[in-house]
Amino acid sequence: MDSLPAMKESYTDVLVIGAGPAGLMCAQALARAGVKVRIIDKRCAFVSVGHADGIQPRTIEVFNSYGMGERMLREGIQVHMAAFYNPGPHGGIERSGRAPDVTAPTARYPFEMTVHQGALETMFLDAMDSMGVYVERSLAPVSVNISEDESIIKDPQAYAVTALLQHQPTSATPNEQEMVHAKYVLGSDGAHSWTRRTFGITMEGDQTKYVWGVLDMVPDTDFPDIRNRTAIHSHNGSCMVIPRERDIIRIYIQLTEEDIKRVTNPETGRAEMKFCNPDILLDVANRSFKPYYVKPVGEIEWWTLYIIGQRVASKFSVKERVFIAGDACHTHSPKAGQGMNASMQDTHNLAWKIAHVLRGWADISLLKTYEIERQKFAQDLINFDRKFATLFSGKPRTEGAEDGVSHEEFVQAWKTFGNFSSGIGVHYPESAAVNVIHQGTARNLIIGQRMVPQSIIRAADAWPFDIQDMLPADTRFKVVVFTGDLSDEVQREKVNILAQELEKSDSFLKTYPPPGAPTDTAFDIISVMAGQKIEVDYTDVPELLRPHWSKVFVDDVDFSGRVGGKAYATYGIDSHGAVVIIRPDQFVGMIAPLNKVNHLNQYFASFRISAAH
Amino acid sequence: MDSLPAMKESYTDVLVIGAGPAGLMCAQALARAGVKVRIIDKRCAFVSVGHADGIQPRTIEVFNSYGMGERMLREGIQVHMAAFYNPGPHGGIERSGRAPDVTAPTARYPFEMTVHQGALETMFLDAMDSMGVYVERSLAPVSVNISEDESIIKDPQAYAVTALLQHQPTSATPNEQEMVHAKYVLGSDGAHSWTRRTFGITMEGDQTKYVWGVLDMVPDTDFPDIRNRTAIHSHNGSCMVIPRERDIIRIYIQLTEEDIKRVTNPETGRAEMKFCNPDILLDVANRSFKPYYVKPVGEIEWWTLYIIGQRVASKFSVKERVFIAGDACHTHSPKAGQGMNASMQDTHNLAWKIAHVLRGWADISLLKTYEIERQKFAQDLINFDRKFATLFSGKPRTEGAEDGVSHEEFVQAWKTFGNFSSGIGVHYPESAAVNVIHQGTARNLIIGQRMVPQSIIRAADAWPFDIQDMLPADTRFKVVVFTGDLSDEVQREKVNILAQELEKSDSFLKTYPPPGAPTDTAFDIISVMAGQKIEVDYTDVPELLRPHWSKVFVDDVDFSGRVGGKAYATYGIDSHGAVVIIRPDQFVGMIAPLNKVNHLNQYFASFRISAAH
Ligand SMILES: Cc1cc2nc3c(=O)[nH]c(=O)nc-3n(C[C@H](O)[C@H](O)[C@H](O)COP(=O)(O)OP(=O)(O)OC[C@H]3O[C@@H](n4cnc5c(N)ncnc54)[C@H](O)[C@@H]3O)c2cc1C
Ligand SMILES: Cc1cc2nc3c(=O)[nH]c(=O)nc-3n(C[C@H](O)[C@H](O)[C@H](O)COP(=O)(O)OP(=O)(O)OC[C@H]3O[C@@H](n4cnc5c(N)ncnc54)[C@H](O)[C@@H]3O)c2cc1C
Repeated sequence: MDSLPAMKESYTDVLVIGAGPAGLMCAQALARAGVKVRIIDKRCAFVSVGHADGIQPRTIEVFNSYGMGERMLREGIQVHMAAFYNPGPHGGIERSGRAPDVTAPTARYPFEMTVHQGALETMFLDAMDSMGVYVERSLAPVSVNISEDESIIKDPQAYAVTALLQHQPTSATPNEQEMVHAKYVLGSDGAHSWTRRTFGITMEGDQTKYVWGVLDMVPDTDFPDIRNRTAIHSHNGSCMVIPRERDIIRIYIQLTEEDIKRVTNPETGRAEMKFCNPDILLDVANRSFKPYYVKPVGEIEWWTLYIIGQRVASKFSVKERVFIAGDACHTHSPKAGQGMNASMQDTHNLAWKIAHVLRGWADISLLKTYEIERQKFAQDLINFDRKFATLFSGKPRTEGAEDGVSHEEFVQAWKTFGNFSSGIGVHYPESAAVNVIHQGTARNLIIGQRMVPQSIIRAADAWPFDIQDMLPADTRFKVVVFTGDLSDEVQREKVNILAQELEKSDSFLKTYPPPGAPTDTAFDIISVMAGQKIEVDYTDVPELLRPHWSKVFVDDVDFSGRVGGKAYATYGIDSHGAVVIIRPDQFVGMIAPLNKVNHLNQYFASFRISAAH
Repeated sequence: MDSLPAMKESYTDVLVIGAGPAGLMCAQALARAGVKVRIIDKRCAFVSVGHADGIQPRTIEVFNSYGMGERMLREGIQVHMAAFYNPGPHGGIERSGRAPDVTAPTARYPFEMTVHQGALETMFLDAMDSMGVYVERSLAPVSVNISEDESIIKDPQAYAVTALLQHQPTSATPNEQEMVHAKYVLGSDGAHSWTRRTFGITMEGDQTKYVWGVLDMVPDTDFPDIRNRTAIHSHNGSCMVIPRERDIIRIYIQLTEEDIKRVTNPETGRAEMKFCNPDILLDVANRSFKPYYVKPVGEIEWWTLYIIGQRVASKFSVKERVFIAGDACHTHSPKAGQGMNASMQDTHNLAWKIAHVLRGWADISLLKTYEIERQKFAQDLINFDRKFATLFSGKPRTEGAEDGVSHEEFVQAWKTFGNFSSGIGVHYPESAAVNVIHQGTARNLIIGQRMVPQSIIRAADAWPFDIQDMLPADTRFKVVVFTGDLSDEVQREKVNILAQELEKSDSFLKTYPPPGAPTDTAFDIISVMAGQKIEVDYTDVPELLRPHWSKVFVDDVDFSGRVGGKAYATYGIDSHGAVVIIRPDQFVGMIAPLNKVNHLNQYFASFRISAAH
């Protein structure tokens, strides 16, 4: 008898299961960080039309931090205005008002964008290509196991997880199998996550009864708000209009109970696509749009049925070796435009932590902060979404329906949740990576939130930059020193002492970079003086605080008077200055007065590993 | 005897001689316009280091109008601050002040940029590649002749020029010749222009005695203004520092009479590169820099000697068939950073005119406006440059040298000429293409200057855009209708009448597009309402004024409160509105009240050709 061919066996640092937005964000971030990563997807091709589209302001900031912001801004559609329609006195709908689509005062990009999921995934794929990482398609896991051996589990460098992968029928080599040994595994395999189910993680919350149809088309219409994010409440149902690329719009159409019956499979009792078609959806939409009409120019581009489930996974991590992210651990209505954003933010949060652990820079316990930070967020999100979906799907209040949702209530909710739904207000609780003891040192810069953008002026050449552009997602912690006014002798002396403290061998700056490596391998130091651009010199700050002339800034207005000059005031930093520690994901990790280097040392000691160990 | 091989003979619409900035700008603009163009250069390779670098604010606007602005902004270095050093009381120099590098309040990009000439030329070459146009190198003309036949000269479509081209010794086929028949020829062949000399065009003005050395290097220095545009006046000479890419700086070093002797060829009596070297220049520079030092980290990247000539050609065109542009018709000191900018502006001015004539859209007489507009500019430029160079090269005023140039005088000149040297203030005189009769209708929008940038809000979706982004260099005239407030019934009626007038068969909108072609083939119509974004609908303007929903704007502030809302006020347009005609090069060609469509018709009749003819 012939012996079976030896099964392929291989090793990787991280295996990512599922190449949707969550998985792709993770793979590209790890690849940039030099981590050996593989990413697989059971589908044979990537999404090219339809699916998610709304990109929230914070997501644009994150793309920018990976060097992909310019492309996002070039390819996407900006959504600035929301419009609201309600039943009017003559039977049809009429506009009850307009409002900003985004209400998040500190957003760097004060608008939402729409980028279709295919375009978005292409940005990741292109970035990955340049690093030699690609999606292995038509490939899915058959089994995945975490070692039971405690000594292996405790060793961050051990291949603690084995996954048996199998080529799908769509593959060129169907049924071929491969055993992959990975140090860490991410299950970013969507709402029906195989990974989640394999580890028996439960979803909490319940399916709601709302069923939505989705239509993408180039419209022929007389509706004046067709290019805004328009919420229509009519006596015949609710719709949401979303403007997209190439004159396309998307309409989310809420199906009434009657409509749901029309698309229900009598055998399963569930709404199903094969019992629906775009004409039914268009018909329902036009009932809501009256007295306006909307119909496609040419073909309907894409359509689907979407049934809202609002659920969060009971845990996001198994032994800090297998993680789940994205729709695998939280699902919600498409109306608030959150899904894709939250999914990418999950893995943006996770990737740098894995990179630090793999480099031996951070203790494996840092990985616990992933669940601490993202599960809380997901729960907040679901609470928000539930409230929002209820408001949105509720009957409008009119004469004779006094218990309905009034326009004012709706707009108020829209604004209240603006900061949250934009992704800007996300707030991580205290943990090893978030230390709030000196919150008072920069009153308005909330520790555990993302660094607030501000224009600052480069001291050497008066070129204005947004401080966020100095905080790329390059896995380094940023040490931003607000020096105060160095023409004040007392303050200058304090800054000199700070520099001396930072020079000491027990300072975090000296403790954590790999032996022999320059400080800026692990930390990027930026200083921001108080003062005037025409007065200060970049040479005013102590040498340690200016590893390069381009790292010194001043909080002043630029020469055109258009931007800058408000950083200290916005952050609530007074003339004594402050040191702000910003995590690789742009979240503020800690703030300290200039004379508390010892507290900064303690912060890093709580999760970092000294290079000398 | 063997017969000679038949000489290659070919036909092209436009032949461009010389692929420097002027020639490349022209070739890419013509290629974009669908014109058959060839561009040759006698050199075998393109410039990759050194040469020109300063990009003025208006030049960035022009690049943006060709879709190349984003790349320019990505690749270039921004220069925001100027610094001035003068002799101090202790012998060495000291800083007498700092000022904005650019003082042009309406500049969209309120800074200068430095982009080395190779990077700049690559932007053009890449754009041309996508249109199948490339530079034919190692190729130069031997002779060029304009037909003597009046009927040919009068026919804009005739091949009125023949040029005999010869492959250079550096070519793969040296000495091979080709006869090219062209409708039009551009000589953009630099300061020693063969084309200019061939047609016996004289240069007016004279060489000045100033000799400058130029050094490019990454500096090791203790000089705090090394990343600014710094003008140093010392008792030992003058320098100018220009920051560049990759930490490189350029120093322009003025040679004193003594220094000039050191680099003079005793045989010719002229300063020559082979009698100079970078050490001499570095030595001279360091004399000026005292008490600071500057020396290269590693090698000097590039250096040259530059002898200032300030001259303008007596004519820019021969029979509107052969044109000269760029350094071929004006040269000046490098200090004001003008040469490359003025050269590209020349051909930006010329290209759309040639395209219009070749399409049969404009009378050949339109080409006369090239010389009218650009020769005046060149003369203004030389006058400016002469004054500036004198100031710059003059002795500083100090005790004992009361006739020298004071710091105040210098800074004053810097500011006064700011608007001009930025390229923003360029003002073309009246001509067929510049009609000033209704200047009063938009008091602050100067007819004959470039359209002033302003943020306006798109009515359909409240997305803010700069009006300049609606004015791409696509060869179309833009008809910008400032409608006033359409909620005012009287005004609305006026706008309706305007639309009716424009619909008439004798209106310019109907007269000039090719038969059967839509209006927007030749004209792009944009409307800008007065009003509020939350009130107006894009459907408020008559249909003729909204060929697409994206063409309707409102003069309001955007939702973030950051931009917009000042267009009417800035332009000096009152509640009666105005029609502004903007040329394909973004210059304002005419302004008219809404009820003066007949005057607009006359404007176009003065240079355009009706499609019916
Ligand atoms: C109609 C519609 C409209 C939406 N609109 C919006 C919106 O406007 N804004 C918004 O933010 N979100 C929206 N969403 C939600 C959004 O699509 C998801 O939240 C987002 O795609 C989640 O990303 P993800 O990477 O977690 O999962 P997914 O995008 O679902 O990706 C999971 C990937 O894993 C693969 N996979 C699954 N199982 C396996 C397996 N066993 N092995 C290997 N691979 C596997 C899948 O093939 C898939 O590629 C919408 C969704 C739908 C359906
Ligand atoms: C050291 C230095 C510094 C400068 N600094 C600045 C600055 O800071 N800012 C600024 O704006 N300007 C600066 N200039 C000037 C700038 O380089 C020129 O103004 C600019 O390049 C002019 O562009 P052009 O296309 O007219 O001519 P050129 O750039 O000279 O190009 C002419 C082209 O024609 C080709 N050619 C010549 N004769 C023939 C022929 N017979 N047949 C075919 N091809 C031919 C040449 O090979 C060349 O490629 C500087 C110049 C020098 C030398």
